[in-house]
Amino acid sequence: MDKFLRAAIDEARQGMAEGGIPIGSVLVIDGEIVGRGHNRRVQQGSAVLHAEMDCLEQAGRLTAADYRRATLYSTLSPCDMCSGAVLLYGIPRVVVGENSTFQGPEGYVRSRGVEVVVVDDAECRELMAQFIAANHALWNEDIGE
Amino acid sequence: MDKFLRAAIDEARQGMAEGGIPIGSVLVIDGEIVGRGHNRRVQQGSAVLHAEMDCLEQAGRLTAADYRRATLYSTLSPCDMCSGAVLLYGIPRVVVGENSTFQGPEGYVRSRGVEVVVVDDAECRELMAQFIAANHALWNEDIGE
Repeated sequence: MDKFLRAAIDEARQGMAEGGIPIGSVLVIDGEIVGRGHNRRVQQGSAVLHAEMDCLEQAGRLTAADYRRATLYSTLSPCDMCSGAVLLYGIPRVVVGENSTFQGPEGYVRSRGVEVVVVDDAECRELMAQFIAANHALWNEDIGE
Repeated sequence: MDKFLRAAIDEARQGMAEGGIPIGSVLVIDGEIVGRGHNRRVQQGSAVLHAEMDCLEQAGRLTAADYRRATLYSTLSPCDMCSGAVLLYGIPRVVVGENSTFQGPEGYVRSRGVEVVVVDDAECRELMAQFIAANHALWNEDIGE
């Protein structure tokens, strides 16, 4: 497996171990991980720290030139908010672990010039399937439903 | 002036007083302000706490039913990220202080069923004009340019 997707899954598993929603993300620039994150709705009572947002926050303030060489990895298809962050910063490439549990606005993101690669990884799917089966209401809250 | 836009401007001024980017936001449900925020890029070294995101975070974890009765006020047209947060949570109405300094994806947001009201408020415009004249690089960083 791609080592960066592996790192994102490790973040998801860390979130799960904390009692949180098992979605993880890493930001990669020039072959190096510059930010890591996982969903913190439960852990911090956060309405905005989806995995991708937490990852971008952990990466810190970067220049536009940095973002334009970056790839954002996420174990799950980024929602409207996280996709919007990709568009704001002009991140040119997103690698998605799976999009069968949930699919964000991938078509719109592609129409704005972003490359979206969907790996369809079984481990990512299984993490979410187990989580949602046991935490349906929490999952719905996380996606605004 | 609409008292909620006034509250958003007060948030923007608080951010400016802290040395930050003068953009403010409030979230209103059933005629009450349930969250307030301002841009915290400078104050917290944050890449994700635009005013609207900070406001949603301060409002805390809400139910979908809460968001669907909400109006988000912002002194400036919400960027891709903040617009995405509106779409994620199904917030049906956004009131924008001004969109001449910067315009987010208002057309796309409207196409997704959100009412976007642009007030074109002179005080909001003036806050940004003064700030950008003195902080051009910081402003570009905040909008990914």
